[in-house]
Amino acid sequence: MIIDPSPDLLARAAQVRRSAMALGQLDDGQRNQAVLAMADALEQNTENILAANQADLDAAAVEELAPALVARLKLDGPKLVGAIAGVRQVAELADPVGRRQLHTELDAGLLLERLTVPLGVLGVIFEARPDAVMQIASLAIRSGNGALLKGGREAMRSCAAIHAALRSGLAASAVNPDALELLTSREESLGLLKLDGLVDLIIPRGSNDLVRFIQDNTRIPVLGHADGICHLFVDRATDVQMALRVALDSKTQYPAACNAIETLLVDAVIADSFLPQAVLAFGAAGVELRGDAAAMALGVNQAASDEDWSTEYSDLILSVKVVPDLAAALDHIARYGSRHTDAICTRDAATADRFLAAVNSAGVYLNCSTRFADGFRYGFGAEVGISTQTMPPRGPVGLEGLVTYRYRLRGEGHIAADYASGVCQFSHRPLPL
Amino acid sequence: MIIDPSPDLLARAAQVRRSAMALGQLDDGQRNQAVLAMADALEQNTENILAANQADLDAAAVEELAPALVARLKLDGPKLVGAIAGVRQVAELADPVGRRQLHTELDAGLLLERLTVPLGVLGVIFEARPDAVMQIASLAIRSGNGALLKGGREAMRSCAAIHAALRSGLAASAVNPDALELLTSREESLGLLKLDGLVDLIIPRGSNDLVRFIQDNTRIPVLGHADGICHLFVDRATDVQMALRVALDSKTQYPAACNAIETLLVDAVIADSFLPQAVLAFGAAGVELRGDAAAMALGVNQAASDEDWSTEYSDLILSVKVVPDLAAALDHIARYGSRHTDAICTRDAATADRFLAAVNSAGVYLNCSTRFADGFRYGFGAEVGISTQTMPPRGPVGLEGLVTYRYRLRGEGHIAADYASGVCQFSHRPLPL
Repeated sequence: MIIDPSPDLLARAAQVRRSAMALGQLDDGQRNQAVLAMADALEQNTENILAANQADLDAAAVEELAPALVARLKLDGPKLVGAIAGVRQVAELADPVGRRQLHTELDAGLLLERLTVPLGVLGVIFEARPDAVMQIASLAIRSGNGALLKGGREAMRSCAAIHAALRSGLAASAVNPDALELLTSREESLGLLKLDGLVDLIIPRGSNDLVRFIQDNTRIPVLGHADGICHLFVDRATDVQMALRVALDSKTQYPAACNAIETLLVDAVIADSFLPQAVLAFGAAGVELRGDAAAMALGVNQAASDEDWSTEYSDLILSVKVVPDLAAALDHIARYGSRHTDAICTRDAATADRFLAAVNSAGVYLNCSTRFADGFRYGFGAEVGISTQTMPPRGPVGLEGLVTYRYRLRGEGHIAADYASGVCQFSHRPLPL
Repeated sequence: MIIDPSPDLLARAAQVRRSAMALGQLDDGQRNQAVLAMADALEQNTENILAANQADLDAAAVEELAPALVARLKLDGPKLVGAIAGVRQVAELADPVGRRQLHTELDAGLLLERLTVPLGVLGVIFEARPDAVMQIASLAIRSGNGALLKGGREAMRSCAAIHAALRSGLAASAVNPDALELLTSREESLGLLKLDGLVDLIIPRGSNDLVRFIQDNTRIPVLGHADGICHLFVDRATDVQMALRVALDSKTQYPAACNAIETLLVDAVIADSFLPQAVLAFGAAGVELRGDAAAMALGVNQAASDEDWSTEYSDLILSVKVVPDLAAALDHIARYGSRHTDAICTRDAATADRFLAAVNSAGVYLNCSTRFADGFRYGFGAEVGISTQTMPPRGPVGLEGLVTYRYRLRGEGHIAADYASGVCQFSHRPLPL
């Protein structure tokens, strides 16, 4: 299924890499100016971009694309104005590059620093949504990275017009426009997965299936998540009204989001007083409930199958299970969860602490909605993606997900033999950051 | 080549994971005590361990194992005493768990924290060196992680004796001894590579070939590096005596190390005055030089082939190339380097800054030996490995490589809809760490 990159793709990726290495050495002001120039160019090319999008929409109509896809594909005037404003906001984000994370005097005149640096080149694969191209391209340039951008086939004309505008913006900046390259074919998209050494991070923006396919078929690190199976556990020591509020918001505020809950776990001790009210409230909100036997005895009128516990509905459907206690809730989450975000409602401090310590997810929440799991809501100013991997970065990832670090050691002729022999000793004195 | 884990291996790995999850919730003092109990138990089992090692050595003699391997396999009394002291030092390391990296008030009563937590379960694959088992097991327990340990076949009796002692130590602690499991067969070692979801990080301790094989055959993150092709560039504006000192140390202080240089790049402007002296000094140190035409014209008496520039000799051999300028040196390093550690000797501040900014390696050094690239020398107190990946952790990795982080959000019934509607606003107020 995976194919080797063509010589043409290799050459273009190498060119992106060279441009990215130069970009990575520009200063904050230069990268900032480049992002603003991209925004200006998008503005100047509004007509072209909207016309290209209309052509994509016409083709979509002929091909009878699903309405949900058409909605994501559509880029009208106000949506483009909003996207351009988003690009300008990226310019205002604090510079993630050049931050000193560690500063140590190893010995007199031998100074160690750890500094953030750009990753290098991002590979970004989108489905539909041409506005995402503007967002991710501006985040890439802001953080000193080049990017290979691959849009969906249905958005090819829109992506080409946006890419041309972004390049013309970069041409009026210190950044080589070759730092942004657009891939257009499925072959290129598959070849991208094998560009180890030329691409440092792949960011998929699309369906769970797309993400899983990419994760399964590349050795390049992937920033993202396939499933988002989030849980809310309503503990016995819960304010029922608060729990209802949090449960409803966690499911219904935006059910298609990865941070919406798919399963509600209810402590058996409180099930009698909580579940009948929850059944009414979810029913009023148009949510279909699927329960285990105990939940059905308390008003849930559809049975959950085994498969339900590991299903991300992304819709107004919620599975409900009555569990005997906290330990059973923890077991269920460990078994079925996707380590995205899991929450508990309780007024018992010891129970809360146990839950927060034991659940091995990127986000563990107490008495609040899982919908807060988001880079903007966390205050990062931007979100590159949400990662459910164990290793950092995990959870909602802001610009810091697009940088790595480098150790810099400056000496005055220092050699290791002097320390091995005992002639010199390390001081390992921390210096101010 | 890769085989699925057997049901037995899956069950044992699941048991390690369960024990590790419990271990991860212990406090600093408990984990500390467990490491000290492991040291005590190793001491009490000195006789068993030395006898087991002798049995391994006897078998090695029968099988005519290479002398270098026998040297690494051998564990005599003083070496064991040293290893046990090393375990006690691990107990003294600062706790990497529970550090607050971020603390933000999202709104009144809605508090976000980012806290370090153990990774979970480590998979560690050793070649020979039974002493490494003690070191890595103590680092794992100290940082709250379980481990599946796979020693080399030639060290199987030593590893079994050490593992039994470590378990008996844990039995006298709050840690379930099942947190440490020993794998013994090649089938288990291959099955380990497919334990995604049960093992969070693989740490290979062995040859470049072993590391490359593992990197190529697992989807679990691998902490380590295959090649270590480090460079030293001697710029035109260099103090020749200092450059000679640094070059000699970088090659000869321990030539088998990954942070020793393999290639010396010499600025053509200084080659006349530097190279003839370098040829003498390296000759006196027993180093075989292999040069390009220009280097041979200045005294290097063996020609380098194309292959030399990408060879890690791990021996007293050094390739030498004369380059026209800094840009050519940067190109060479970008093409042949392994992004481990690369150094420049220069007195020109602008040249130094350009090199330090442009070289895309985990370590970039000015006027000092590449041999400083080491977790102990950096002051980390321990080294889990050296990573040449782009994403963090990279370079020498201390205990922080064995932890990740988790976001904790505590609210009082907060829901996202209130922020979407504008009823509430985020404050995003930084709080003290």
